[in-house]
Amino acid sequence: MNPEAPKPCNPEAPYKTYLSENELPAAWYNLRADMKKKPAPLLNPATKKPVTAAELEQVFCRECVKQELDDTTPYIPIPQPVLDFYKMYRPSPLIRAYFLEKSLGTPAKIYYKFEGNNTSGSHKLNSAIAQAYYAKEQGLTDVTTETGAGQWGTALSMASAFFGLNCHVYMVKCSYEQKPFRREVMRTYGADVTPSPSLTTEIGKKINAEHPGTTGSLGCAISEAVEAQSKLPNARYLLGSVLSQVCLHQSIIGLETQAALKKLGVKPDVIIGCAGGGSNLAGLIAPFMGEKLRGEADYRFIAVEPASCPSLTRGVYAYDYCDTGRVCPLQKMYTLGSSFIPSASHAGGLRYHGMSSMLSELYDQKLMEARSVKQTEVFEAATLFARTEGTLPAPESSHAIRVAIDEALRCKKEGKSETIVFGLTGTGYFDMVGYGKFNDGQMGDYIPTDADLAAGLATLPTV
Amino acid sequence: MNPEAPKPCNPEAPYKTYLSENELPAAWYNLRADMKKKPAPLLNPATKKPVTAAELEQVFCRECVKQELDDTTPYIPIPQPVLDFYKMYRPSPLIRAYFLEKSLGTPAKIYYKFEGNNTSGSHKLNSAIAQAYYAKEQGLTDVTTETGAGQWGTALSMASAFFGLNCHVYMVKCSYEQKPFRREVMRTYGADVTPSPSLTTEIGKKINAEHPGTTGSLGCAISEAVEAQSKLPNARYLLGSVLSQVCLHQSIIGLETQAALKKLGVKPDVIIGCAGGGSNLAGLIAPFMGEKLRGEADYRFIAVEPASCPSLTRGVYAYDYCDTGRVCPLQKMYTLGSSFIPSASHAGGLRYHGMSSMLSELYDQKLMEARSVKQTEVFEAATLFARTEGTLPAPESSHAIRVAIDEALRCKKEGKSETIVFGLTGTGYFDMVGYGKFNDGQMGDYIPTDADLAAGLATLPTV
Repeated sequence: MNPEAPKPCNPEAPYKTYLSENELPAAWYNLRADMKKKPAPLLNPATKKPVTAAELEQVFCRECVKQELDDTTPYIPIPQPVLDFYKMYRPSPLIRAYFLEKSLGTPAKIYYKFEGNNTSGSHKLNSAIAQAYYAKEQGLTDVTTETGAGQWGTALSMASAFFGLNCHVYMVKCSYEQKPFRREVMRTYGADVTPSPSLTTEIGKKINAEHPGTTGSLGCAISEAVEAQSKLPNARYLLGSVLSQVCLHQSIIGLETQAALKKLGVKPDVIIGCAGGGSNLAGLIAPFMGEKLRGEADYRFIAVEPASCPSLTRGVYAYDYCDTGRVCPLQKMYTLGSSFIPSASHAGGLRYHGMSSMLSELYDQKLMEARSVKQTEVFEAATLFARTEGTLPAPESSHAIRVAIDEALRCKKEGKSETIVFGLTGTGYFDMVGYGKFNDGQMGDYIPTDADLAAGLATLPTV
Repeated sequence: MNPEAPKPCNPEAPYKTYLSENELPAAWYNLRADMKKKPAPLLNPATKKPVTAAELEQVFCRECVKQELDDTTPYIPIPQPVLDFYKMYRPSPLIRAYFLEKSLGTPAKIYYKFEGNNTSGSHKLNSAIAQAYYAKEQGLTDVTTETGAGQWGTALSMASAFFGLNCHVYMVKCSYEQKPFRREVMRTYGADVTPSPSLTTEIGKKINAEHPGTTGSLGCAISEAVEAQSKLPNARYLLGSVLSQVCLHQSIIGLETQAALKKLGVKPDVIIGCAGGGSNLAGLIAPFMGEKLRGEADYRFIAVEPASCPSLTRGVYAYDYCDTGRVCPLQKMYTLGSSFIPSASHAGGLRYHGMSSMLSELYDQKLMEARSVKQTEVFEAATLFARTEGTLPAPESSHAIRVAIDEALRCKKEGKSETIVFGLTGTGYFDMVGYGKFNDGQMGDYIPTDADLAAGLATLPTV
């Protein structure tokens, strides 16, 4: 009956570094402000001239349009209600992957920034809450969007519930059918979810008529969501990736990572992220790329994409449609053509035919590397990571894990103790169909042929 | 091009309080040491005499048996490898539910300790990693266990993968069929998962023969897992709740909560947790109950159980079988009888017919209150919580949310600003079938009749 006080653990380098809430960045960083050669402007698909703010405001929220077109202001303050929401799940931890390092026997030091500790299961919430806030501030009642794998739809459902907006999600039909639980999470947050292509929009009817039995695509769902907002009295369309405004919001990831590394006194050598539309990667690397552009420091950056949807590594840098229905502005980007659809055997997201214009421009300027990886190798890396580091990663995030492991093994071979930082964008709890296939040895790799790519690129617009 | 440094947020009370890793408790707290009247001893079901360590060691790991029988040592050091694993996901945050408070319009201050930020999705990992470590230390190669809703099976799969143990999980058949993704997570961590009752054990065959088409129960899966370990050359059986050793490991929850509240300078008035087997509640309240037992402070404690499985509120305090096959020791506890099986319409866990002996004794001494709640009211609370606080809670945890909300509304009525602390044991990502039923208005409440209860209690042993 003589209770001893518990003793503290041995002091050592922490596994997880959390900033305090008061260290949460109060402004997003706009990387474009530090780019000498800016991303090319969005074009009106009809006139092929740069879109105006007034044109964009027909589709997007006013403040988001302002951010989309602003390539000169370096820091944009985060509104207090958004900061308050961020505090519910941010700052997110920067984690030292001690156990992964040990299992690889590498002298490399591996850190990952974990964005999966919120119900949406990914970084998408960072932009969803910002966009929902601007919609609310503008006096809107409804928002529309598309979702593929489901992370963005979930994030926007959460954000809409928080601000009392009606949220209408067009979900790519194959995901809608394969992921009933994703849909149910969105419904729990009050959203309505429609499988796309649907019969509720003109473009959906057209695509259904032209491609009977189609299971949909992200480009098609975008077109439907854009059309749907135009028919609602007080709505705008919100997008979860690709656009510069989204990359801006995601800079919170990089800013926190930078601050945490500074606290630890660690300078990374290589920074790795998966890239579909590109927003998480753009957000993660933004402040580091800023240092590089300003000549203050040098880093390697690696964008990792699926071999089944290789926009950076096998696409072309050109103006293209952002959606199948061709209602959105044209964007100059690395693209596989708006008609390109990755194989249905590809598990998870990272299925978009194009890439953020900002990342495309940085890649074109050779300021960033890109690598494509096969999905079986991705799931191998995911399983090793899960068993050593505990967290079951999303298939998307596991693309970054794959290359982080490859880089750590290179360090082992070369006897170098480099510091590797990667973005763990989310968890895989809703992706167990993919894991199941892998566990059963039923997963294959699908790599598009040159002919597949040529067919996609044949649909590029002339500008 | 003149980047401003981001400004810090306004200083205010934090949303989340994290202890540093060096503040992680280095010892578990054994509440029994401070109990004047101890929980009754486990009995050998054949002889009805207190079980010996040697008898228990046939089934359980040696060190776990030692802990099970130790009701006098107040602090038991956490082994360093367990602490190191804890650091991957602990200390867990203590969160101030500002947005829930606001939506209720209550003067009460609500805090919750969130145990869901790990892949198992719950607090179960706290004991799984400890038990797996002791199994490894003892030189075992295999462990067996049962799982109902799936959180414990997932946690033990993760812990087993970490220490390189083969893990064999008997999963209650209805869960196995309704939750294929839970099963897939366990397989990803290398476990094999068998639906129970199976044809791989004698007891399973017997139950299948006596109850053709049965979808199983926790008590039955326990019997199968215990039998399975006895047939493996180098295995022991591990249990996820009920036992005092498990409550001991879960005291990490309460110790962290106590330390975080101390940091904040906050003294709780009421502490609330859901109770199935009782381990999370026992862990959460342990150090506070210790203060109460030692006369240092006073708190109200509320155990919340489902109206469909009301062991504390409608059971009896008596010796009973822990499992359907009657191979485990007899335990004195609040019980509904080992043959009691809650309705299949009950969503989620908290389905065990009995209750931790320690909590049973505290309840019998009127040191703790108990309340039963209907599942539709639980899912209402869960949905409100998800929409205001962001996190989608597990159905089990939502029992605690329900009563926390009820207490906060009482405070509103009485104009009192009490401090309410509850345990949010986990997330609901694998429970979307239940949420779906609720979202569709298809969820009912099932409350056992007096006749149902009498039938269960008729199977109590005579001691």
